[in-house]
Amino acid sequence: MNIYDVAKMAGVSIATVSRVVNNSPKVSEKTKRKVMSVIEAADYTPNVFARGLGLDSMKSVGILCPDIADDYMSKAVAVLEKRLSEYGYNCIVSCSGVKAENKELQVKLLMSKRIDILIMVGSVYSGDGEDAKETDYIREAAKTVPVFMLNGYVEGDNIYCFLCEDFKVVYEVTSGFIRRGKKRILFLSDAYSYAAKQKMAGYEAALIDAGYPVLGDLKLYCKNDIHYTRDMLLSYKNLQFDAVMAVEDGLAIGAIKYARIRGLSVPEDISVCGYNNSALAISCEPELTSVNNHPCKMCNDAVDLMIRLVQGERDIPKKISVPCTIEKRCTTDF
Amino acid sequence: MNIYDVAKMAGVSIATVSRVVNNSPKVSEKTKRKVMSVIEAADYTPNVFARGLGLDSMKSVGILCPDIADDYMSKAVAVLEKRLSEYGYNCIVSCSGVKAENKELQVKLLMSKRIDILIMVGSVYSGDGEDAKETDYIREAAKTVPVFMLNGYVEGDNIYCFLCEDFKVVYEVTSGFIRRGKKRILFLSDAYSYAAKQKMAGYEAALIDAGYPVLGDLKLYCKNDIHYTRDMLLSYKNLQFDAVMAVEDGLAIGAIKYARIRGLSVPEDISVCGYNNSALAISCEPELTSVNNHPCKMCNDAVDLMIRLVQGERDIPKKISVPCTIEKRCTTDF
Repeated sequence: MNIYDVAKMAGVSIATVSRVVNNSPKVSEKTKRKVMSVIEAADYTPNVFARGLGLDSMKSVGILCPDIADDYMSKAVAVLEKRLSEYGYNCIVSCSGVKAENKELQVKLLMSKRIDILIMVGSVYSGDGEDAKETDYIREAAKTVPVFMLNGYVEGDNIYCFLCEDFKVVYEVTSGFIRRGKKRILFLSDAYSYAAKQKMAGYEAALIDAGYPVLGDLKLYCKNDIHYTRDMLLSYKNLQFDAVMAVEDGLAIGAIKYARIRGLSVPEDISVCGYNNSALAISCEPELTSVNNHPCKMCNDAVDLMIRLVQGERDIPKKISVPCTIEKRCTTDF
Repeated sequence: MNIYDVAKMAGVSIATVSRVVNNSPKVSEKTKRKVMSVIEAADYTPNVFARGLGLDSMKSVGILCPDIADDYMSKAVAVLEKRLSEYGYNCIVSCSGVKAENKELQVKLLMSKRIDILIMVGSVYSGDGEDAKETDYIREAAKTVPVFMLNGYVEGDNIYCFLCEDFKVVYEVTSGFIRRGKKRILFLSDAYSYAAKQKMAGYEAALIDAGYPVLGDLKLYCKNDIHYTRDMLLSYKNLQFDAVMAVEDGLAIGAIKYARIRGLSVPEDISVCGYNNSALAISCEPELTSVNNHPCKMCNDAVDLMIRLVQGERDIPKKISVPCTIEKRCTTDF
C-alpha cells in the first residue's frame, strides 16, 4: 500500500493525500476525514506512511560546523540536538572544514534537503568582515530559511547571530596579567576566524591601554596540538615571555609543557590562560585557567529563540551577546 | 513554481513528475523528456525542485549514539559523516542517552525519517547479552534497513557488527602489569556496557592465568570525571593498589591525580593505563599510556562495507574484529 493506493481508494489526487498527511489547511474537513479513514483502515501511521514517499511532515534542522570531532563543536551539537529533538526536529549534521568553497557547497546541500532552519556553528562562517561577497551564500540561504550563527556575525535579513564576548574577556585576562607585573605576554592563536580576531583585538587593546607596546614577535600562529605547540616554542632561540594568552586549551597546555622542559615554574615564571574550558584544562598539571564561553548556554538560548521565531513571534533580536567567564585555576595568580 | 505547476505544464500527474525527478524506470523516455524540459525551462535543478516537496532523492543515514559530546563518539561521527558525504549520503544524527526506552524511541524516530542505513555507535546498544528481548527493536529495524553496530554485537539478519578486541588488549595490559611485578591491580570502570564487560573479562582472565586472585574490592565503579575519580580514590581509607587499568582516560587521569596528592610516583609506585587514547592522555602529566581502539579505522572500514552492501555485493561479513593497540607513554614501564 502506498500513496497512490490511498489516493485511488479515497478518490482524490495524491497531492490531496500529501496535503492531508502534512496537515495543510487547504483541504476541506470532509476530504480530510475521507483520506484519514483510508489511511487508518490500512493501519498506516502518517509518519510511516509518509516515509516511503518523502512526504514526511517531520521538521529538520541543518547544522553545519567545521569539524564535529572538535570538543567545542561536539558540545554545541549535543545541546542543539537534545533541545531540538524535544520540539520534534531532527538534526542533519554536516561538516564543512574551513575552506570557502566547501562551506558554500555544504550549505547548498543542506538547503536541498528540506531543512526548516540552518544553524552554523563556529566563527569560521563569519568571513573576515572585509569582503561581504564571502558571505553572500549565507544571505542567499536566509532568503529561504532562518539562519542562526553560533558565535559569528553576518549582516542580513533572517540571520540571527550569537556573539561571544571574546574581545572583552581577553582584554580582562591580559589586563590581569599586566596587573600581576607581566611584561611580555605571548598571544597564541591557531585561526584567523572572526572569533580569533576578536580575541587578538582584546589582547592588543589591553596592552595599548596599559601603555605597553604591541609586538609582532609575541603574536604567534600555531597548530592546535599540544606537542606541536611545545616543540614550536622550544624551537625559538630568543623568545622571552612571562605570560601566555592562548585561544585554545591545547595551545595553552603546549606552553605549560614548554615551561616544564625549560625548568620554569607556572604560574610564577610563566602564567597561562587557555580558552574553551575543555576537559583538557582539568587533565593537565598544574590545572589550567581557561575562558568559559558557555557553548551550552548559547545553544540553549539559540533554540529558545528558534522556537519563538517558528511560532511566529516578531521582534526577535538579531544580535545576541554571550558573556564569557574566566575559570580560575592554578596557572594564573590574578 | 512547484510540482503542481510542473505537472500541469507538462500535462502529466504529479506522481509522474515525482518518478522523473527520482529517476524511476517506470516512466517512458518520451514522458521523461517532456517533464525535464519543463523543469529545465523553469531553471530549477531537480534537487532544489525536490526540496519543497520532500521528493528529494538524496539518501540518508541515521546515526545514533548515546552522547555526541563524548570524545570517542564525536570522533566516530566525524569520520562517518565525512566518508558518507563523499558517497552522497546525508547524516541524521540523534543522541539517545543510555536509557532503554529512549534508545528504542530514537531508533523508531530515525526509522520514520526515510533513512537508508542505521548506524549505532557505542556498545550501550548491545544489551547485556542475557535478555535477547532487550535488542528486539534493533532486529525490528533491520527488517527495513541494514543496521551497523560500531563496537557492539546483536545477533540478527541484516545486522553488521564491528567489535573492538577489548578483551584481548586488556588481557595484554594486565599481563604487562603482572610481568613488572604489580600485585594489586585496580580495575576502574564507568559503565556496564558490552564493551565494559569485555574489558573486565580480559582483566580477570589475565589475573587468573597468572594465578592471582580476582578481588571484588579492586573492581571499582566510578563516574568518568577526573576530579570525581580522584576524590573517590582518596575517600577509601584502606585501599591499596600498585597499578590501574581504567576503561576511560578520564578515570585513569583521576588515578594519576590521586597518586600526586598521596605523594606516590607514577609509574614506579602506581602504573596507570587508560582507554580511548584521547587528547586527555597527552594533556596530563606524566603523559598517559592508553589503549587505542582505532575509532577512525573502524568507521572507515564500516563505510567501505556499507557501500559494498548497497551496491548489491553479497557475502558481506557480519562480525568484524577491530584490533586495539597500546600507546605506550610515561605512566607504565612495560
